[in-house]
Amino acid sequence: MRVVLQEEALGDGLQGESRLFGLAEKLEIVRLLALAGVRRLQLGSFVNPRSVPQVANTDVLVSLVRQQYPDILCTAQVHNERGVERAVRSGLEHLSVIVPVSESDSRKHDGRSAAEVMTAATRLIATATAGGVRIRAGLRCAFGCVYEGEIAEAAVLDAVGQLAAAGAGEISLADTAGMAHPEQVKRLAAAVRAAYPEIGLSLHLHDTRGLGLVNLYAGYAAGVRAFDVAAGGLGDCPFIEGAPGNVATEDAVHLFKGMGVDTGLDLAGLCRAVDAIEALLERPLRGRICRAREESPPGTVRREAE
Amino acid sequence: MRVVLQEEALGDGLQGESRLFGLAEKLEIVRLLALAGVRRLQLGSFVNPRSVPQVANTDVLVSLVRQQYPDILCTAQVHNERGVERAVRSGLEHLSVIVPVSESDSRKHDGRSAAEVMTAATRLIATATAGGVRIRAGLRCAFGCVYEGEIAEAAVLDAVGQLAAAGAGEISLADTAGMAHPEQVKRLAAAVRAAYPEIGLSLHLHDTRGLGLVNLYAGYAAGVRAFDVAAGGLGDCPFIEGAPGNVATEDAVHLFKGMGVDTGLDLAGLCRAVDAIEALLERPLRGRICRAREESPPGTVRREAE
Repeated sequence: MRVVLQEEALGDGLQGESRLFGLAEKLEIVRLLALAGVRRLQLGSFVNPRSVPQVANTDVLVSLVRQQYPDILCTAQVHNERGVERAVRSGLEHLSVIVPVSESDSRKHDGRSAAEVMTAATRLIATATAGGVRIRAGLRCAFGCVYEGEIAEAAVLDAVGQLAAAGAGEISLADTAGMAHPEQVKRLAAAVRAAYPEIGLSLHLHDTRGLGLVNLYAGYAAGVRAFDVAAGGLGDCPFIEGAPGNVATEDAVHLFKGMGVDTGLDLAGLCRAVDAIEALLERPLRGRICRAREESPPGTVRREAE
Repeated sequence: MRVVLQEEALGDGLQGESRLFGLAEKLEIVRLLALAGVRRLQLGSFVNPRSVPQVANTDVLVSLVRQQYPDILCTAQVHNERGVERAVRSGLEHLSVIVPVSESDSRKHDGRSAAEVMTAATRLIATATAGGVRIRAGLRCAFGCVYEGEIAEAAVLDAVGQLAAAGAGEISLADTAGMAHPEQVKRLAAAVRAAYPEIGLSLHLHDTRGLGLVNLYAGYAAGVRAFDVAAGGLGDCPFIEGAPGNVATEDAVHLFKGMGVDTGLDLAGLCRAVDAIEALLERPLRGRICRAREESPPGTVRREAE
């Protein structure tokens, strides 16, 4: 058994951090992640650099990583035609397009209706795929949105259908607000797989409400074999209470290891990458397994431990 | 569907804390937990007060809580005949006895062989049950021990058999070192239930390696209906890297709520208890859901959120 983990540390992971990461720092993180076996890497976003300074160096980063690590599948987010042009110039053959399913979220986040964003996205996907670029379409807040609560399954299935028809080869159900619960994950994943058996399905889960790993486990049980993760559980904004963090790569690897599922990733190597990121951020990250290495004093020797 | 959650905050939870909690502080925590619906409460340990100062006031605490909250099932740990006497004097009708399954853990922790500890424990259980006290026997490190790794299923089943024969009405499989993984939890819980269908089975899970909630979810799937939890995920020793913490009560309640399983507990009330404990400890606790209340700025409004 095997799963594919897409590493989000350089993309979704760092975007919430106010400390800006330079190119050399990002390349060092990539080097450590590659050593740990990472073969699918989110590198940032082709947006206006002024709106998200953290990803202003995505073009160069992508070019360098593609040169140095030809066996890593690199990807990044695009939001418009200009982004696709930049991505293609940097050599990317795989891109990610994000679409909302909640109307309120779309209005607040994109300033347009969900239908308008969908129309623009399907046009973008058609253009990109015509140019030979593979597209993964992510459904933002597919499991619930803070404005509307749980999202109707029919709305998700309808969006998946439109994105697949436009040429997206993979659908990512994103629990952006961390509102998913495991039975819901099982239900929705099974429904999408049943309705669109030909399309790749992945899950992008946040640990905002503590259920990140439980939802990942439930997704696996429902047949999902691709998940987004971020080293150290990056994606947590340290200055906003309740801000979401991604599922920590190392904790997901530890979970799958216990289940006998191969991730291709090495735990010790991942902990070295987490150590490096923690040193740059000057704070501990949220992942658990790297702090619980075998040499640490076990709770078992405390007199009253149960 | 319904599960029973035993609250460990006052017992296992505070024992790792160097700050000593006075009687009034503990009673205030109990008051908030009772308001949140807690009906099963671990209150401490009848050990030599000098060896664990945090639980030195267990006798008085038990007496007061039993007077003030007659509908709460109180329990505490005992380790010898003297402890049973103290417990009975304080009015307790339910006690917990802990037994190791790993030989190395037993030697290091108890200074005796596992067989010797088992003999003493079964004698203690027989005495206590003869006196009308109900006993829960906890198997320490049932899912693995840092010295020996995974524990053989046969060893666990054998221990369960001896404890049940001695009169224990409930068995708690404790993942003291946080080494369990979900498939193992399912397997072991199913094996114990199949071999001893007449005995109550509960799980005491630690989140040391990040799998606390996943293991709880897996245990529920295997038919377990009683779990130990601690408000805020207490049981984490802040000064020892990699020290174990219990599964956070509020996160477990949130998980079960999403599954449509009744815990009898109120999330808002639990968050008030967590707030109070955090104020006393002057640090945030590990539970997630209380930090992700609806009013907090959602990740969804960040420009690039997936």
